[in-house]
Amino acid sequence: MSTFSIMATAKAVPDKVVTNDDLAQIMDTSDEWISRRTGIKRRHVVTDETNTSLATNVAKQLLAKTHVSPEEIDFIIVATMSGDYMMPSTAAAVQGQIQANRAMAFDISAACSGFSYGLDVMHSLMATHPNSTGLLIGSEALSKLIDWHDRTTAVLFGDGAGGVLVTNRDNDVNGQFLGSQLDAYGADGDALTMGHIANQSPFVTVDDKADLPLHMDGHRVFDFAIRKVPASIQAAADQAHLKLSDVDFFILHQANQRIVKSVARKMKLPFDDRFPINIDEYGNTSAASEAILLAELVEDGKIKRGDILAMSGFGGGLTTGTVLLKY
Amino acid sequence: MSTFSIMATAKAVPDKVVTNDDLAQIMDTSDEWISRRTGIKRRHVVTDETNTSLATNVAKQLLAKTHVSPEEIDFIIVATMSGDYMMPSTAAAVQGQIQANRAMAFDISAACSGFSYGLDVMHSLMATHPNSTGLLIGSEALSKLIDWHDRTTAVLFGDGAGGVLVTNRDNDVNGQFLGSQLDAYGADGDALTMGHIANQSPFVTVDDKADLPLHMDGHRVFDFAIRKVPASIQAAADQAHLKLSDVDFFILHQANQRIVKSVARKMKLPFDDRFPINIDEYGNTSAASEAILLAELVEDGKIKRGDILAMSGFGGGLTTGTVLLKY
Repeated sequence: MSTFSIMATAKAVPDKVVTNDDLAQIMDTSDEWISRRTGIKRRHVVTDETNTSLATNVAKQLLAKTHVSPEEIDFIIVATMSGDYMMPSTAAAVQGQIQANRAMAFDISAACSGFSYGLDVMHSLMATHPNSTGLLIGSEALSKLIDWHDRTTAVLFGDGAGGVLVTNRDNDVNGQFLGSQLDAYGADGDALTMGHIANQSPFVTVDDKADLPLHMDGHRVFDFAIRKVPASIQAAADQAHLKLSDVDFFILHQANQRIVKSVARKMKLPFDDRFPINIDEYGNTSAASEAILLAELVEDGKIKRGDILAMSGFGGGLTTGTVLLKY
Repeated sequence: MSTFSIMATAKAVPDKVVTNDDLAQIMDTSDEWISRRTGIKRRHVVTDETNTSLATNVAKQLLAKTHVSPEEIDFIIVATMSGDYMMPSTAAAVQGQIQANRAMAFDISAACSGFSYGLDVMHSLMATHPNSTGLLIGSEALSKLIDWHDRTTAVLFGDGAGGVLVTNRDNDVNGQFLGSQLDAYGADGDALTMGHIANQSPFVTVDDKADLPLHMDGHRVFDFAIRKVPASIQAAADQAHLKLSDVDFFILHQANQRIVKSVARKMKLPFDDRFPINIDEYGNTSAASEAILLAELVEDGKIKRGDILAMSGFGGGLTTGTVLLKY
């Protein structure tokens, strides 16, 4: 248990809203079908925004809200699987944009578990650096990696970014890092894939085809999530010596409203305000979803100082990750 | 200063060797031109190997060398900018392949500084988890992202992987983490770019063109490296309360032999055995280069227990990173 205070939260989503009815005009689907199976009604999709511009927008809001100067930032981590480039990282681009001249910067690739993984890594980096400040952002521009002809995946995802400015300096915000449980299930990695670039070098001896779009075996991922996420949350709670009843909010990755409901049921908890949902507005924004939801709950005054939060992500890898925090 | 013992090192490079003369047959270049400007004579290039297969090969060697069981591994980090997929991460794939069933797994994207960044992140994760064991691998299959028609970049890069198994358990290997300095210079990120996938969603409003191949402004990167790397090493040494004369080996990212020479000169040190070079054999393998060089020096008996190592990377981001270790 160590000081790990979330000084501020922020989110940035593209202006363009695409409704289920909009999608029904370009593919064989319907609002009723999408809503019933996923809880999604709208998603925000980039038009001229980029992964970097969304992440930078979040970073600038966090600095403005806290009056922290860019030079005070020690660590910038961006969790993403849809960076504008494979090099440079989105984190380095954000570092340059906000002139955080003392900060190291790197991206974490852990798919939809990226924000929870990022919280854990940020906590460890800060634990070895007293009086440090970190910027953690989940940012995705998934729409460029969606097969817009595949109605089974195209309806599910959205773009956006969210983030937190965290510190372990002594101050009047006494948040804490209470425990974490991060896991990987690489043997099931083929259930959720994206972004394979073909090797076309003169030396390659295999017939390697590009396969950029996101593919998902929905049933496998659903079963995986409802089996592993409750276990991940319970393990993190055990580590923090907390009971599930101590947790004020379960900020779950917004992949599908039915997954959140099933996770609650599996944990023998009512599906109520402790399991907030915003997938209706944003769809699945992967590494950004927990951060966007957190920012909304803070902004709306629902999450208050002292609340215990379980931030839990799951998805590509396959991976799961839960971090328990006192806000 | 904390226990951070490198239990073993390993490397895996593709079988296929491409000489400068081989390249001269497919582009307007020559062995003399490449050798004189870079020190490169050969590079290993994937034929049927992949980023994942190279990294998994390294992981299996490390387990075999140490008799550590996969279940003992807590953390798997792969530093890469050329993963087989944007999802899943290479680290999750390795986790699955070696059945490291307790390990979390994620990739770090910090380009050619990735291995040094990875050492620092791994150290922090382990520092917050007593009695833990971590697998850190740098792995690159850059040949699929090279423009083989661009002789200014195609001659410079190679494929390969290298890694370390590290622990902070009490044992008879008493390595230490002595200090680190990691920086980012995102404002100069356009000097070194790779892997831009076009956004072709129905909603995008800008004309976004794919630009997958690696591009480098060689002069800018060279100037950057010889200005920032000596400062990075000095800062890490200051943090560790060491003098440069205390360092037994400067394991520099192998981008160009002339950069290593210039860095030595800038630090007023002779360009001798303390600045090992293997770029002649492998070219620039980005996040893998420090790890491949380290593995060779350990294998050859040049690095001995107790030696002080400065592991220093630099490149895309732009970024620099130096970690000082007692081996």
